[in-house]
Amino acid sequence: MTEKNNIDRSTLLILSPDQPGLVASVSQFIHMHGGNILDLDQYVDRSESKFFMRVTWDSSEFDLERADFQARFAHDIAEPKNMQWELHSSAVRPRMAIFVSKRSHCLHDILSRLETGEWNVEVPVIVSNHADLEPVARRHGITFEQFEIDSDHKSDETKQLALMKDLNIDLIVLARYMQILTPHMIDEFPNRIINIHHSFLPAFPGSRPYHSAHERGVKIIGATSHYVTTELDAGPIIDQEVVHVSHRDSVADLTRRGRDLEKLVLSRAIWHHLQHQILVSDNRTVIFG
Amino acid sequence: MTEKNNIDRSTLLILSPDQPGLVASVSQFIHMHGGNILDLDQYVDRSESKFFMRVTWDSSEFDLERADFQARFAHDIAEPKNMQWELHSSAVRPRMAIFVSKRSHCLHDILSRLETGEWNVEVPVIVSNHADLEPVARRHGITFEQFEIDSDHKSDETKQLALMKDLNIDLIVLARYMQILTPHMIDEFPNRIINIHHSFLPAFPGSRPYHSAHERGVKIIGATSHYVTTELDAGPIIDQEVVHVSHRDSVADLTRRGRDLEKLVLSRAIWHHLQHQILVSDNRTVIFG
Amino acid sequence: MTEKNNIDRSTLLILSPDQPGLVASVSQFIHMHGGNILDLDQYVDRSESKFFMRVTWDSSEFDLERADFQARFAHDIAEPKNMQWELHSSAVRPRMAIFVSKRSHCLHDILSRLETGEWNVEVPVIVSNHADLEPVARRHGITFEQFEIDSDHKSDETKQLALMKDLNIDLIVLARYMQILTPHMIDEFPNRIINIHHSFLPAFPGSRPYHSAHERGVKIIGATSHYVTTELDAGPIIDQEVVHVSHRDSVADLTRRGRDLEKLVLSRAIWHHLQHQILVSDNRTVIFG
Amino acid sequence: MTEKNNIDRSTLLILSPDQPGLVASVSQFIHMHGGNILDLDQYVDRSESKFFMRVTWDSSEFDLERADFQARFAHDIAEPKNMQWELHSSAVRPRMAIFVSKRSHCLHDILSRLETGEWNVEVPVIVSNHADLEPVARRHGITFEQFEIDSDHKSDETKQLALMKDLNIDLIVLARYMQILTPHMIDEFPNRIINIHHSFLPAFPGSRPYHSAHERGVKIIGATSHYVTTELDAGPIIDQEVVHVSHRDSVADLTRRGRDLEKLVLSRAIWHHLQHQILVSDNRTVIFG
Repeated sequence: MTEKNNIDRSTLLILSPDQPGLVASVSQFIHMHGGNILDLDQYVDRSESKFFMRVTWDSSEFDLERADFQARFAHDIAEPKNMQWELHSSAVRPRMAIFVSKRSHCLHDILSRLETGEWNVEVPVIVSNHADLEPVARRHGITFEQFEIDSDHKSDETKQLALMKDLNIDLIVLARYMQILTPHMIDEFPNRIINIHHSFLPAFPGSRPYHSAHERGVKIIGATSHYVTTELDAGPIIDQEVVHVSHRDSVADLTRRGRDLEKLVLSRAIWHHLQHQILVSDNRTVIFG
Repeated sequence: MTEKNNIDRSTLLILSPDQPGLVASVSQFIHMHGGNILDLDQYVDRSESKFFMRVTWDSSEFDLERADFQARFAHDIAEPKNMQWELHSSAVRPRMAIFVSKRSHCLHDILSRLETGEWNVEVPVIVSNHADLEPVARRHGITFEQFEIDSDHKSDETKQLALMKDLNIDLIVLARYMQILTPHMIDEFPNRIINIHHSFLPAFPGSRPYHSAHERGVKIIGATSHYVTTELDAGPIIDQEVVHVSHRDSVADLTRRGRDLEKLVLSRAIWHHLQHQILVSDNRTVIFG
Repeated sequence: MTEKNNIDRSTLLILSPDQPGLVASVSQFIHMHGGNILDLDQYVDRSESKFFMRVTWDSSEFDLERADFQARFAHDIAEPKNMQWELHSSAVRPRMAIFVSKRSHCLHDILSRLETGEWNVEVPVIVSNHADLEPVARRHGITFEQFEIDSDHKSDETKQLALMKDLNIDLIVLARYMQILTPHMIDEFPNRIINIHHSFLPAFPGSRPYHSAHERGVKIIGATSHYVTTELDAGPIIDQEVVHVSHRDSVADLTRRGRDLEKLVLSRAIWHHLQHQILVSDNRTVIFG
Repeated sequence: MTEKNNIDRSTLLILSPDQPGLVASVSQFIHMHGGNILDLDQYVDRSESKFFMRVTWDSSEFDLERADFQARFAHDIAEPKNMQWELHSSAVRPRMAIFVSKRSHCLHDILSRLETGEWNVEVPVIVSNHADLEPVARRHGITFEQFEIDSDHKSDETKQLALMKDLNIDLIVLARYMQILTPHMIDEFPNRIINIHHSFLPAFPGSRPYHSAHERGVKIIGATSHYVTTELDAGPIIDQEVVHVSHRDSVADLTRRGRDLEKLVLSRAIWHHLQHQILVSDNRTVIFG
């Protein structure tokens, strides 16, 4: 749900072992401190006995500052209940880095959304292992940083990581970035690196999925956005979309038609992330949206 | 979500003016009485200041009987907060009547689901204005009642209504029933009569929508399930589905392909209703599922 | 396209090496013999230099009987051009056997289509390795044959094969038949055995795909209909469909929702086959429809 | 199907009264003149007795120049058979004008496709009734022409029309252009002006369809691309797409999610037009693709 921007909102994401009284305690806590709940979605995975919750409230009359909230909520509820939790405020604008290689369609799509103000996000940098898309970045007034990726990836990733930290990056988007990140980078951004893969995973992982799809003669092709983990194309899936294809579609057609899926599925994943709608547990996502 | 059957569950549906503390009060009430919340979905329509909530709990250790719940919940919460609410128990099996005319595909689909135990529902009667589908009913051991619909509909509807009451019918499903119900019947079953219309409403209301779709040259056709209100094909929409079509599809093809949509969309609406996932406000549905 | 039944139609399917003048020769041949072409679809796979064509004509004034057509067309065109081809007449009603195990939803769906006359097909027998669905067959007046499948499958398959031949079966439909056919059976019915697999292949082949889909946390589930080859779940794909799912969908939900996909995708494959719209080459289908 | 660019191709579109021998004559004509048919799709609308055909051939060894083709084909076939027909060559790059107002998403999407070379088209001008998108045009090096639309539209449309002719425009794309064209303009570009409407027509024509969709409580929203005729939002439909929505989607959400549909459906219509895959008859399209 799109919230109106003129309201100060807080969003709390909770993941904990299931136990009685969780919704009551949390909603009571928010209510007592002057927050009016706008949206609450909660789910219990009974086979795993896990509790997931997302709650958003109008915080214009909320009586706790962020630091106070942290202390009080941790003390009163989170620690006793053994919760993992995150608090987000609509007043804080997240910072996103975009990694690209040579293909531009996902980058164009993201920049178009930035230009129309669709997302509440800052993009201080576009990173690439090639120079090709530098003019696009320049045209939009965004810093472009090119890193030569050497054979062991390490030295450049160290610089990339330093850049991410210097720029206080919250979220990294791999917009058809054709390099595999090292575990070092991935571990620094757990569930904060989004990749787009051009197949309906787990079918056709790895390279050249449109060729494989054509070879297999599938009647649908797809795209998958997921958080990056150290296992290639195996991270928690955020969104997937497909389109029907036919024997008339050559590999070039699949590639062309797939680009539209990639743009769509990547942008929807970014949206969910920026709206703080995603919880990850056991390599699966819970998406409250 | 499919709940396991071996657990006693209660489901509470709430619609009320929005106001602070609602989630906290209700969840606290359930918790205090020994209910462990399994699923809570809540939504505020801010433009209308309306609060919608569905909560399901494991009631195996709940300490209130139904009548006690009614009294206590009404007194403590519902009346002070000006709530409309419904309580459902998984132990009560709803009773559904199916109305048909001559076309059998939706009926066959429903009977197939009954046979495989997909739905927790009793079907004591199939009602029709024609004799054609009597053998189908008989084959499945379900009573078949034929009513001649006279020109003013009234006398027969009176008998139909009496039958519905005799049989303690909770839900009426119009499975391609080609008669328009009178307000008298509709008023007795508010938001408890589900119809399937063979177009993506509001396009092509009324009769012969596949002919109209062909004439207009649309590239998608659809089906819509909705609660019946006194305005034809204008009740609250529960579900819709579409399929892509092409110039090669004649009216006969649209009719054939549309049947698959009708079966799907009607069965999904019945599922939502039987799972108590639907709230209606202002001629729109909120579906928590 | 649904053809009207009151017209005698012939359908010719052609697969050959690509070469100039193929469409001209074939269409000229049909025209010269009094056939009025109603629908012609043609496709060249340029990477493989293969030519595919389907042509349907009104044969009410066609001046060649079937045997004459065979001789003349082979002599004049097919042999010189090195074509594979099949001729089908709307006057011949294909004969289909349905193989089932215990799950009934696909069988119910097929029987419902037979009852409404959606398909032009005879079903002389339902075959099973279990007795469970015998009452369903009996209710519809169709012979039910149960075969105990022993450990090596062979003795019973020999009997099944004999039955198929006795009954002049053209098409075998595996409607959630939980046995793997031996190459012996498969070789006798090349591209004439249709299976439904409950995943979007090539993802999740083999058993328990809904469990695997849940475990992987996919956001879409699917079903695939394909011709059976000796490699499990790897035959030419005829049709696929998917539906979006969420974290709330348990394995039981995926199974329930998947059933609707299975019914749809299997019935669409049968439709394409009965309409003679499918050509197979190199383990892929070309579907003219 | 995407044709490889290194081959000279000709595409012929034919619309005529149905009569025997059409496919044979046309394919024979192409074959005799050295054309190797790559793709032929043909369809007879039997209820209207109309014949539609699209045929593409490798013209690298074709022995007729364009003017000769015109004369010979007209004389030998088209005139005797009373055909309407169009011949297109892959060597000729069509010229497209884009009309916009203030909303930029469709324009951005089109420009992104131009930049990646997805389409074989020239865009010499972007036309608008507002100055807002001039910077976007300038950034891509495309001439931007602003026309104040006065109350009767006429004087400016005269200038627009003159500009279209000066620039030899073949196709006009209304990329969320918020003005209604006069019949004068429309008549000069029959079936050569493509509009995107933000609903699944015929539902919600006119202005503010997302508001109407929200008000009606539909569970799907859509977008429709169509050729512009003098009747508002009633021209021949080229493509449609929909997405499922829920009660949580506010009008702002529908608008946001609908933008993705608009981009997709408009670009697919442009693709079909540029590939010469569209025939129009009786306010409906036949799309061979």
